[in-house]
Amino acid sequence: MVSRALCALPVLGCVGGSSVRAAMGARGIAAGALIWSSRKRCFCSIHANAGSNASATAVEDAEIRPAKKPVDEAVTPRSQDFSRWYLDVIDAAELADYGPVRGTMVIRPYGYAIWEFVQSWLDAKFKETGHSNMYFPQLIPYSFIEKETSHVEGFSPELALVTIGGGKELEEKLVVSSLKLILLDHVRCTDAFQVRPTSETMVNHMFAQWIRSHRDLPLLVNQWANVTRWERRTKPFIRTLEFLWQEGHTAHATAQEAEEEALRMIEVYRTFAVEQAAMPVIVGRKSRLERFAGAICTYTIEAMMGDRRALQAGTSHNLGQNFARAFETQFTDVNGDLQHIWQTSWGMSTRMVGGIIMTHGDDKGLMLPPKLAPIQVVIVPIWKKGDEQEAVLQAAHKVESLVRAAGIRVKLDTFDQRTPGWKFNHWELKGVPIRIEIGPKDVANNSVVVARRDVPGKAGKEFGIFMDRSVLIDHLRAKLDDIQSSLLARATEFRDSNIVDVNSYEELKAVIAEGKWARGPWCGSDDNETTVKEETGATIRCFPFDQPEAKTCIFTNKTAHEVAIFAKSY
Amino acid sequence: MVSRALCALPVLGCVGGSSVRAAMGARGIAAGALIWSSRKRCFCSIHANAGSNASATAVEDAEIRPAKKPVDEAVTPRSQDFSRWYLDVIDAAELADYGPVRGTMVIRPYGYAIWEFVQSWLDAKFKETGHSNMYFPQLIPYSFIEKETSHVEGFSPELALVTIGGGKELEEKLVVSSLKLILLDHVRCTDAFQVRPTSETMVNHMFAQWIRSHRDLPLLVNQWANVTRWERRTKPFIRTLEFLWQEGHTAHATAQEAEEEALRMIEVYRTFAVEQAAMPVIVGRKSRLERFAGAICTYTIEAMMGDRRALQAGTSHNLGQNFARAFETQFTDVNGDLQHIWQTSWGMSTRMVGGIIMTHGDDKGLMLPPKLAPIQVVIVPIWKKGDEQEAVLQAAHKVESLVRAAGIRVKLDTFDQRTPGWKFNHWELKGVPIRIEIGPKDVANNSVVVARRDVPGKAGKEFGIFMDRSVLIDHLRAKLDDIQSSLLARATEFRDSNIVDVNSYEELKAVIAEGKWARGPWCGSDDNETTVKEETGATIRCFPFDQPEAKTCIFTNKTAHEVAIFAKSY
Repeated sequence: MVSRALCALPVLGCVGGSSVRAAMGARGIAAGALIWSSRKRCFCSIHANAGSNASATAVEDAEIRPAKKPVDEAVTPRSQDFSRWYLDVIDAAELADYGPVRGTMVIRPYGYAIWEFVQSWLDAKFKETGHSNMYFPQLIPYSFIEKETSHVEGFSPELALVTIGGGKELEEKLVVSSLKLILLDHVRCTDAFQVRPTSETMVNHMFAQWIRSHRDLPLLVNQWANVTRWERRTKPFIRTLEFLWQEGHTAHATAQEAEEEALRMIEVYRTFAVEQAAMPVIVGRKSRLERFAGAICTYTIEAMMGDRRALQAGTSHNLGQNFARAFETQFTDVNGDLQHIWQTSWGMSTRMVGGIIMTHGDDKGLMLPPKLAPIQVVIVPIWKKGDEQEAVLQAAHKVESLVRAAGIRVKLDTFDQRTPGWKFNHWELKGVPIRIEIGPKDVANNSVVVARRDVPGKAGKEFGIFMDRSVLIDHLRAKLDDIQSSLLARATEFRDSNIVDVNSYEELKAVIAEGKWARGPWCGSDDNETTVKEETGATIRCFPFDQPEAKTCIFTNKTAHEVAIFAKSY
Repeated sequence: MVSRALCALPVLGCVGGSSVRAAMGARGIAAGALIWSSRKRCFCSIHANAGSNASATAVEDAEIRPAKKPVDEAVTPRSQDFSRWYLDVIDAAELADYGPVRGTMVIRPYGYAIWEFVQSWLDAKFKETGHSNMYFPQLIPYSFIEKETSHVEGFSPELALVTIGGGKELEEKLVVSSLKLILLDHVRCTDAFQVRPTSETMVNHMFAQWIRSHRDLPLLVNQWANVTRWERRTKPFIRTLEFLWQEGHTAHATAQEAEEEALRMIEVYRTFAVEQAAMPVIVGRKSRLERFAGAICTYTIEAMMGDRRALQAGTSHNLGQNFARAFETQFTDVNGDLQHIWQTSWGMSTRMVGGIIMTHGDDKGLMLPPKLAPIQVVIVPIWKKGDEQEAVLQAAHKVESLVRAAGIRVKLDTFDQRTPGWKFNHWELKGVPIRIEIGPKDVANNSVVVARRDVPGKAGKEFGIFMDRSVLIDHLRAKLDDIQSSLLARATEFRDSNIVDVNSYEELKAVIAEGKWARGPWCGSDDNETTVKEETGATIRCFPFDQPEAKTCIFTNKTAHEVAIFAKSY
């Protein structure tokens, strides 16, 4: 009986079913707020199915799990099927696997090692810029999310409000989402939890207790944590039910300081993307429709993937006083007056790993920027006759020691059940930037062959590099630097050749239809932006910081003060 | 109606209510398994209340949240009320705060920094010993926990099985715990999740897919993660609903390798506790009753807190093939035969931070071992007249630079709204190992005063230490080393003077009643052990590795091959 009522709820939700409305009313929530989807811009189904017997509700759950390929089979070429290639690479390079619950991901050691490089660089940078790490609990009282109106709205697709049929429905309703916890005794709204989708509400609850005076400001903290969101269409690293990230949260005495902080942190992300991940990004401001729920301004770094879709790779929000007002987070200023704090939040997640895969990979598999490669150099020894083996392996071990002692991350592949050719493919698939080959002739010449991952075939090979420490290490270091900058240059060129300046809506449509990014003057309304999205599938990725001269808006024909970049995105 | 049914459930659970039993039968679970508490050894209430209107069920929830003290008030002396002192120190030293959900904890920057030192030392050691980090999702299908029988039993107090009243109860039951998630549509048992209390089941689900051959072994991984357990009586750091930890998981081809691994990792924990946390621990084996649910053997490090209660500070489990059999985790051995893998798991958590507080703290507050102190040296400048200030601050800044350049973690407290006396108390409360005082006379003499936290008053002070780099830095380094070893020596002496060898059950009772630990020969049964627990409140903490000669069992009077240590514990 109960379950039947629950089953009917998605439909009720879509039309604002009376029991839902009654419950919302009883809890002081504006009708619609909880089940309004800002993404779909409609009253929308309020939760998702995981069972295989999902019926036709307003929700589509999708997780493509291709059958695993046999170990020796090559990945689907990128040029043939980008999406399938992406999943194949993740599987074959052992970056991640699917968890038993739909839309969850297991990050395997090789993928996690990349994330650890992201973490260690960012963590050091956060500390340099005065932030401390801490940890907030993941269980958040349900009532918190109601406090900041636009925050509720933005996260509504992932929440649900349910009443149980029966006489006492209003008093004894359960407030749940698919990612919400329930206390069964004495159920009250305040006894329901959510598993954090993000922590602004929790942070404000605590900040309100810690911050008294301007002397307590700025308060600059960060946490490394998992967050959970009920996503419908999932893809490893890019969008999963649970993901890992860092979320920075800061409180300031003035609007200007908060704005400076938001800008400082998006610049940290830009630097990371460009200098570490060799990922050229465009920094800019999100449109009103695309900004974070509860922010007054969201800054973003937008990257172009190999299929020319945009990936939002990191965001930094100026929250103004929105959360502070909702949570009464106040301080006494230098004049003794009570003021609400000014806040920021900013995050980068394991999505970055997906971005790296889709920025640099090729038909052969992964291609890792040397700075983030768990293995920077792989050594493949080559021998045919039994008596060659010992000398080759001895030389290979010697080279391994030299390279490791120089602080380069190196792996010697001595596995004797595979041919050198198999190993070449394997480590290319894994994206290792440099391969050293050592055969009997090389040993005789006291030299090695150095092959780079980013230049295929003979063109990428250098023969006769002396095994001597001073020569070899300098050579490898220079090569790693060169690969790092080559990857960036190649990705930048690809990106720039796929961004087209447009002067009319017709031009924009044509460019988007080609799969490219369109850049054009824009001063349209939210509704105009929605029209563009509906008609082209493209959204405003950002108003880039780097602005050409203003011209006529492609949509309204009024004078635009800015250009915007439109693209289809992940 | 539904809620009423749910409210009644704890009582039903305690007596094995018919709907619960019916549902368990339908799911193929032995009656009792899901609601049997191995801890309480009785059919037990199956979840807890968080509401303020908690009624009298079989469950007691307890979280003592003392009122916060005014900023300038000293902490409750440890000698007066240990438990209150502990909570006061955590509050006043800003180590942690209470989350809005009962039993959750916010780890504040100063407390989190200690945890980061724990993490970085352990993480390096895990990698040295061949382990890779990775990440498993926290959402685990409910069905997993049923697969390993003793595991279910051990974690049962934190789970609940609920049927909803109505005609379709068996088909449409909800399987929830207070920390379980629900899918509302098409509810089937397999659609219910738990938020991980630990990851053995998830790990085995994945290992079964990854491990094929003996060449895939050993598989050695670790994850840094949050876990969630529905604890009833909570205490910051020591026992909270959610906590942070690392959990290592390894798979091996032979029983011997797994046993060696379990021993290797408990030794890593022992080394950490002794060498980094200055926490003397006793390493040993848990009794059958106290070992991890699903393990064939649990090793533990047991520490004595300042109130002489025992704290289990880290455990390493030899899981044998229990999970492998439940999850069919098999490999082909060198002879081509299919075999189940042999496994271990091991963990250390943020509980360690609580252990450090309770091992070293004194009436004045926290006392941190230098190796884990976020601030190792604090500099307090002292001046009276305005013209003194500049010279003193200049000297203080110079000393700060010197000390920082030497890689010592230093803080210069220039805040001008507090007296030096206030600052002395403040940094003592925060447990900073060394204080440097610099006044006008010191500046004139080009020297400083060095005071150590662990030796109160003048006895802990040295005057006239030259500000010169070579003198000062050597002095500080030696002092930090000395404090580190002094803390260990003091704690060891305290511990050893509070462990009493007993030769009879009467002696044991007397020793436990005194609050001390009792060590005596033991070959009793599980029931005998339970009797001791019921009659004395003490449990077998471990059979220590370090064993004297065997004697007569204190309980059975038979020949015992081992001594056990009994104590009351956290």
